[in-house]
Amino acid sequence: MYIDLSKEELGALKTVLEKEYETFKSKGLKLDMSRGKPCNEQLALSDSMLNMDLGDYKSESGFDCRNYGLPDGIDEAKRIFADMLDVGTDELILGGNASLSLIYDIVTWAKCFGVSEKDEPWNAQTKVLCPVPGYDRHFTILEKFGIEMLCIPLSRSGPDMNLVEKLTAEDENVKGIICVPMYSNPDGFTYSDETVRRLSAMKTAAEDFRIFWDNAYCVHHLCDTPDTLLNITSECKKAGNPDRAYVFASTSKITFAGGGICALASSAANINYIRKQISVQTICFDKLNQLRHVKFFGNFAGITEHMKKHRKIIEPKFNLVCGILERELAPHGLGDWNKPRGGYFISFNGLNNTAKRVVALCREAGVVLTGAGATFPYGKDPDDKNIRIAPTFPPENELKSAMEIFCASVRLASAEALLA
Amino acid sequence: MYIDLSKEELGALKTVLEKEYETFKSKGLKLDMSRGKPCNEQLALSDSMLNMDLGDYKSESGFDCRNYGLPDGIDEAKRIFADMLDVGTDELILGGNASLSLIYDIVTWAKCFGVSEKDEPWNAQTKVLCPVPGYDRHFTILEKFGIEMLCIPLSRSGPDMNLVEKLTAEDENVKGIICVPMYSNPDGFTYSDETVRRLSAMKTAAEDFRIFWDNAYCVHHLCDTPDTLLNITSECKKAGNPDRAYVFASTSKITFAGGGICALASSAANINYIRKQISVQTICFDKLNQLRHVKFFGNFAGITEHMKKHRKIIEPKFNLVCGILERELAPHGLGDWNKPRGGYFISFNGLNNTAKRVVALCREAGVVLTGAGATFPYGKDPDDKNIRIAPTFPPENELKSAMEIFCASVRLASAEALLA
Repeated sequence: MYIDLSKEELGALKTVLEKEYETFKSKGLKLDMSRGKPCNEQLALSDSMLNMDLGDYKSESGFDCRNYGLPDGIDEAKRIFADMLDVGTDELILGGNASLSLIYDIVTWAKCFGVSEKDEPWNAQTKVLCPVPGYDRHFTILEKFGIEMLCIPLSRSGPDMNLVEKLTAEDENVKGIICVPMYSNPDGFTYSDETVRRLSAMKTAAEDFRIFWDNAYCVHHLCDTPDTLLNITSECKKAGNPDRAYVFASTSKITFAGGGICALASSAANINYIRKQISVQTICFDKLNQLRHVKFFGNFAGITEHMKKHRKIIEPKFNLVCGILERELAPHGLGDWNKPRGGYFISFNGLNNTAKRVVALCREAGVVLTGAGATFPYGKDPDDKNIRIAPTFPPENELKSAMEIFCASVRLASAEALLA
Repeated sequence: MYIDLSKEELGALKTVLEKEYETFKSKGLKLDMSRGKPCNEQLALSDSMLNMDLGDYKSESGFDCRNYGLPDGIDEAKRIFADMLDVGTDELILGGNASLSLIYDIVTWAKCFGVSEKDEPWNAQTKVLCPVPGYDRHFTILEKFGIEMLCIPLSRSGPDMNLVEKLTAEDENVKGIICVPMYSNPDGFTYSDETVRRLSAMKTAAEDFRIFWDNAYCVHHLCDTPDTLLNITSECKKAGNPDRAYVFASTSKITFAGGGICALASSAANINYIRKQISVQTICFDKLNQLRHVKFFGNFAGITEHMKKHRKIIEPKFNLVCGILERELAPHGLGDWNKPRGGYFISFNGLNNTAKRVVALCREAGVVLTGAGATFPYGKDPDDKNIRIAPTFPPENELKSAMEIFCASVRLASAEALLA
């Protein structure tokens, strides 16, 4: 364990670690692990979708998907997402190619028009709760609109609910919470039933409080006994807060990243309001891509089957990363991590004040990681210790090289930090 | 000529026209001519695009179009639009499936953040000039954001430029103009070179004045000697106002309506700013659809060829409508219209105070037209006389029936109006 070493021992170790790092660096690798991107084999699983026979291009209702119309999306595609998210088709609307755009749109509407006909626009003092570590692109949207982000510590069962309840009850400017509740980005935690119930039922000072429930990984299991997530739409309904939650999902990491389709589930009242908003900004989304997805999957069971193939491809990569971390860092007490049961990331927590240095060392040695701090609002990790590892994209041999450089960088940065 | 008739003659005529109308009504037709939708034969022109061989799914730069990335779009698709709009590829960015969404986005950014880093958000007193008649969906976006719309009369050479120059020079809250400059919606007018030059060079009290140049029909010719439109991007540059114009185009009415791709051209500085905005709201647009379009068309010349096939299908429909109007209404002096040289619509101006009644009569008889007033901001046609006719979608026999009902309705509504 590095922390048990004397300054002299650490100093000597550092010299050794510097040499080790230089050896890795001299290999001149060039690897990008910065984003959660599917790998070639994963993408290839859906290739046949790209020349499906689309028949007469008509939806089951007889609507020509090649033409304008149906801003909601075609019924049969809505049904697949409705089954995925366990809601009625009247509680769901399809979007374009990215659920992130729907999140952005809803924040825009909230800021410009209010979250319903009767609500005022979110004011300049608006705050949103952000369980951390979290998804950097959520934070970017909120920051763009000048919405203050309040960090909420996240544990295995979800965000610190005592703090969440306290802040939402006390401050009417706390207007929402944004999170990835299942196989969270980056930790891979799934919110407990109690967490979901408390989020649905808690008293909020703001009447227009909203939960942004980015269920991006709801079918992205990496184990035989998948986590389960309580249905927040129905929990909110039961608790008398039917309009509280917006649930997002997409096929970006099921079929094609950027070439998928997305959906939003909420109360029928919210969906009606959203439908009106969307009808201002577009005539319709790409129904041909919806039809393609329907022909490819048939129904939600088709997606479930498809996800097993994804698991087969990426689970070994998660095992590889965790194995290397276990072997190269655990004996030295240099950080902790979680082998996730699903999702797309491994969240690595090193010693305090090492994350930025590790990312910089990796970059110098040719391995691009997600920026240190990215998993926190404003890019500020108070302990400078969290790094999001995205294992899916690189081939296994490259992943192995990248993780060896990562571990060498962690060892060196840790020795430096302990000496500082 | 109806206007030459005495009250008695008109009264007798009205009785005849009522019977005639009832005969049409009793046929129980059901036709929708409310939107400018391509017809089945037009859509079929691009069917083979839907199972193109996309090779290894890579862009010419080697980027896998199935994966995240390239928020700007792929270079080869950018080139097609750059050639279409006669700009450099650094002056252009691709969007999703609808240029309307890009217009909405830019208005949103203007209202929330300002049109550039140095500009303030458009204030609550913001006004935008709207040449009329115009496109209802433009007006819907502006109205949604509470932007005051000022009507500018449109003639064959474009908007009344004396009025445009006066208003923009006098009032710093006049922040923009929104228009369809080529084969205008609905009139089919193309702005003259002088109009384009004056718009580009005029003094504006607002430093953040912008031209929304919706070039939706730039390749949609319906004649052998197409109209030409001066390049506003380069005119603005020449006039020392490089950032003034946003130019929009899409393939919605080239390939698939709702299943196409769109683009925005502007100064490189504007495009840089827009790129930053877009990167907040999405990771990328659907590059597979961009690739599909590239494989299908090859280059801009491919689009030009393709549009000739569209013309072959729809020109007879425009001729049919104009022929019926000529035969059934011209002899009675009941309105005027323009056989357009391109675009998607025929703009019909009846006698004052007849448009709403005509649309209602048509609807009762089973023919749905674009709502009267839709071509004006707030849905208010001051003379209640303009009706947008969309001839492309119905088969010719149905179009003929619809236009007969339309003419019968115009005759009846005109007699009623003259008697009132």
